[in-house]
Amino acid sequence: MKNTVFIAKSLDGFIAGENGDIDWLNSIPNPDKIDMGYTELIQKIDAIVMGRATYETVLGFGIDWPYTKHVFVLSHSINSIQKDLKNKVTLLHGDLNDILKTIHKKGYHNLYIDGGSTIQNFLNEDLIDEMILTTIPILLGSGFPLFGNLNQPLAFDHIESKVFLNQIVQDRYRRRR
Amino acid sequence: MKNTVFIAKSLDGFIAGENGDIDWLNSIPNPDKIDMGYTELIQKIDAIVMGRATYETVLGFGIDWPYTKHVFVLSHSINSIQKDLKNKVTLLHGDLNDILKTIHKKGYHNLYIDGGSTIQNFLNEDLIDEMILTTIPILLGSGFPLFGNLNQPLAFDHIESKVFLNQIVQDRYRRRR
Repeated sequence: MKNTVFIAKSLDGFIAGENGDIDWLNSIPNPDKIDMGYTELIQKIDAIVMGRATYETVLGFGIDWPYTKHVFVLSHSINSIQKDLKNKVTLLHGDLNDILKTIHKKGYHNLYIDGGSTIQNFLNEDLIDEMILTTIPILLGSGFPLFGNLNQPLAFDHIESKVFLNQIVQDRYRRRR
Repeated sequence: MKNTVFIAKSLDGFIAGENGDIDWLNSIPNPDKIDMGYTELIQKIDAIVMGRATYETVLGFGIDWPYTKHVFVLSHSINSIQKDLKNKVTLLHGDLNDILKTIHKKGYHNLYIDGGSTIQNFLNEDLIDEMILTTIPILLGSGFPLFGNLNQPLAFDHIESKVFLNQIVQDRYRRRR
């Protein structure tokens, strides 16, 4: 069983700027649209776990549902999933450890944990095993931070670093247990 | 003329933990005491610029004065330098651009900017040209952050990344102007 974070952040640790600005994520020219490991990650995982905000952001893109793996949306406020997504999305809420038990019982063990608040909640319960962090070389100065307060410090092992497009550093860390 | 930052930070961007804790900086075993580029940096620079807090922290170590280059201490509250350091330390205060003019006039052009508040103040005035950031693979959860609010986003170019001790990533960024 493994919970993996795969996310892009600014040099000062934000995943979105003021007012949710994410234009800076594409500030480095990427003519061949390399995906920096995203497809490889999606192939490896069994399911995606995200928060309500991320779910609604994706819906708001107005594109076809982009996920090829089952998505678990953590929310206390959403009561139902729109019809066409009922086979693709499951709503869950409650204690994170209970949520994980539920997901594991359904046969999903290798999980991609996405969304700022969800990642922070998982880290606060020490439930993240691996983090693949992609750093865009910009200081935003403000916005929504990737990391938040923790109950305790968490040590990781550095696994590897890659540089994409000569500008973007991607570091892989594994929780030291 | 160049202003360089060379500093270690946690994975979540802190340069000190709660109550100024910096023990985690040495959490990765370093039996051969490699300096990760520090000596090379000191050789390249003409002088060091630091804030009062860093200056007093260094004095508090109770060791011999560790700097071989002239140190400019930015402080509104300190009025004098202890006798034995008078040839090694100069006090300055005022507007950062004026301070830089003063330092440049004295013949120091290649500056190492140190200390959390000082680095943040320089960045806020877009006065940092290069940053060498050394990342210890630990999430602290709280403490004194390296980066703060900015008047505007600042784009950098990634120059190189190195991995020390198989665990510590050091990234060099240059301000894109």
